[in-house]
Amino acid sequence: MIDMNRRGLVLAAGSAITAAAVGLPARAAAPERKLGYAIVGLGGYGLGVIIPQFKNCQHSKLVALVSGDPAKAKRVAAEYGVPERNIYDYKNYDAIKDNPDIDIVYVCLPVSMHAEYTIRAAKAGKHVLCEKPMAVSSAECQQMIDACKQAGKKLMIGYRCHFEANNLEARRIARSGGIGKLRYFRSEHGFTAGNPNAWRLKKAMSGGGSMMDIGIYALNAARYMTAEEPISVYAKETTDRNDPRFREVEDMIEFQLEFPSGVIGSCMSMYSANQNHILLMGDKGRIDLEPGTRYDGNQLWVGQDRSKLITPPPGPGATQWAGQLDHLAQCIKQDKQPIVPGEEGLRDIRIIEAVYRSAREQKRIALV
Amino acid sequence: MIDMNRRGLVLAAGSAITAAAVGLPARAAAPERKLGYAIVGLGGYGLGVIIPQFKNCQHSKLVALVSGDPAKAKRVAAEYGVPERNIYDYKNYDAIKDNPDIDIVYVCLPVSMHAEYTIRAAKAGKHVLCEKPMAVSSAECQQMIDACKQAGKKLMIGYRCHFEANNLEARRIARSGGIGKLRYFRSEHGFTAGNPNAWRLKKAMSGGGSMMDIGIYALNAARYMTAEEPISVYAKETTDRNDPRFREVEDMIEFQLEFPSGVIGSCMSMYSANQNHILLMGDKGRIDLEPGTRYDGNQLWVGQDRSKLITPPPGPGATQWAGQLDHLAQCIKQDKQPIVPGEEGLRDIRIIEAVYRSAREQKRIALV
Repeated sequence: MIDMNRRGLVLAAGSAITAAAVGLPARAAAPERKLGYAIVGLGGYGLGVIIPQFKNCQHSKLVALVSGDPAKAKRVAAEYGVPERNIYDYKNYDAIKDNPDIDIVYVCLPVSMHAEYTIRAAKAGKHVLCEKPMAVSSAECQQMIDACKQAGKKLMIGYRCHFEANNLEARRIARSGGIGKLRYFRSEHGFTAGNPNAWRLKKAMSGGGSMMDIGIYALNAARYMTAEEPISVYAKETTDRNDPRFREVEDMIEFQLEFPSGVIGSCMSMYSANQNHILLMGDKGRIDLEPGTRYDGNQLWVGQDRSKLITPPPGPGATQWAGQLDHLAQCIKQDKQPIVPGEEGLRDIRIIEAVYRSAREQKRIALV
Repeated sequence: MIDMNRRGLVLAAGSAITAAAVGLPARAAAPERKLGYAIVGLGGYGLGVIIPQFKNCQHSKLVALVSGDPAKAKRVAAEYGVPERNIYDYKNYDAIKDNPDIDIVYVCLPVSMHAEYTIRAAKAGKHVLCEKPMAVSSAECQQMIDACKQAGKKLMIGYRCHFEANNLEARRIARSGGIGKLRYFRSEHGFTAGNPNAWRLKKAMSGGGSMMDIGIYALNAARYMTAEEPISVYAKETTDRNDPRFREVEDMIEFQLEFPSGVIGSCMSMYSANQNHILLMGDKGRIDLEPGTRYDGNQLWVGQDRSKLITPPPGPGATQWAGQLDHLAQCIKQDKQPIVPGEEGLRDIRIIEAVYRSAREQKRIALV
């Protein structure tokens, strides 16, 4: 009830932004203040993965749903205690601007819809958490960044692994010299795509194939593990275009990244086999994550080989998603930049565009 | 004693080539006939690894030594029962032509000496087993092949993994569709080079750095596991030239191979970290070898992940080296082409030359 009271108080002040905005230490001033999320898209990820996570959050709560399926939305709303007045569809979506319950919009739609629903959210005065990949093109990413900047709203991309305990510990060890001077990063990410009619396999909706959807984990990990930005890419694609799943999008892409320090990154993305592995090699040892970026069951080894399994310290949240949802809520409260802002999503999409270009032109592409 | 008797008989016939040469079924006619090896070079590999292996052989025996260090040669000869008359140095080496004990010369010298000592052996009428990498250039490889052909002698390259049980079983499974359609091969091979004065780190003696010495295992495995020849390479080198070990030769090279079927190979070679791994992914499963090509302790997993460790059927010899040594002996007896002839070594060196060129020119090199 303190939450509701405080919320009432804040709303009375005419703003969904809180303590930090009025110069108060956020944590002390609003210990129970939970920010309200609207989930846009009740597909597998939004409904199956994200919505059940609010019970693990300390700073975030589910307050609204946006769906094209009214019956489904009503059912989910009832299950999760979302008032019916907070159900929207894609037509009346812009009316969220009049709903003070909603602080943040989490865009869990097919990739081609990310830009539109992020920009409309920003125009409605809402902060945005947008699933990865950020958009189908770097031009769209830039428009999303600009829209949120213009609206004075935060924009964060759903890179959940930045809140996952094994990944955080691996990164800490790698960056702190725990395996000596870093030399080599390698990651394979893939799963076996099934239904040829899934939106992921329709280029107009996904923007691309495995690289956009699963290969991006390898790419993003290469960047966050090394704390460097690649200066070039070289990529090779193999796709069986007779396979009904791959009429429109690529199956496999192997891409090599050059980093300024000399670290070499070698990554594989695929839709035709299951693989989830991250390897970091330094001149004094190695770090293995396998699986590395799954929803659960990730495992971390550090040493000369895979004999020493590490139990990492807890991540920032009870789960990677709780950590992610609460991070944006806290950034809003404290007016801080999220650790994975829109610019982070844009960087990956720019590199992915270079990966596609390299595979097409069969040459090294320098990144600027 | 049967061995000695039969040997005496064959020598009396004026030839070190046996049953097959006179139209007899080799195995039946000469069950105990062991061919005699001269080991050229009593360094770490020749003395430490190869010589102790003759006790495991059924068709091969140690009969002669070639060394620049007479005291060492005498000591080793005494230990292994080699008669002193069968000790040669690099000057009187060509006199092996007059020694009927010697059927085969095993060249265990620094790479820059492979061509010379192979060609001189062929001219002396001996078959040759030459350590990998075959030579410092493809031109030298061709000269070695030509010399052996001209002399009517066999030439085999010391690719021991073709006789290693785990590698053979992995290859059998991969080629027989045991993991479905093959899509991806990856291998990292490296070790931490120590002494900056080792011949391996002197370009004039080694022909190159990690790629020639250890990366070649990844390359060769890519070819024997897929049973395909790559159609292009792309490579990136990273070497710290201030490191006293790497003043002359490269440290790390990541290289990507394109195969005609669409299989993508991704390989890492390095002298600054220990790694020994082969991964094959098909659309129905994967094969892991880790370590994959060590002297011993290699392990093989087959399945959806690394949960199922496979015990392979025994290889052709009691050890990979016994299998290798005996294979050439049997090929000679039966007048068959070794499974890893000079042409196999040449193929690798040609690809390595393309790898170096690609790294230098920062572009994809098509292989013809």
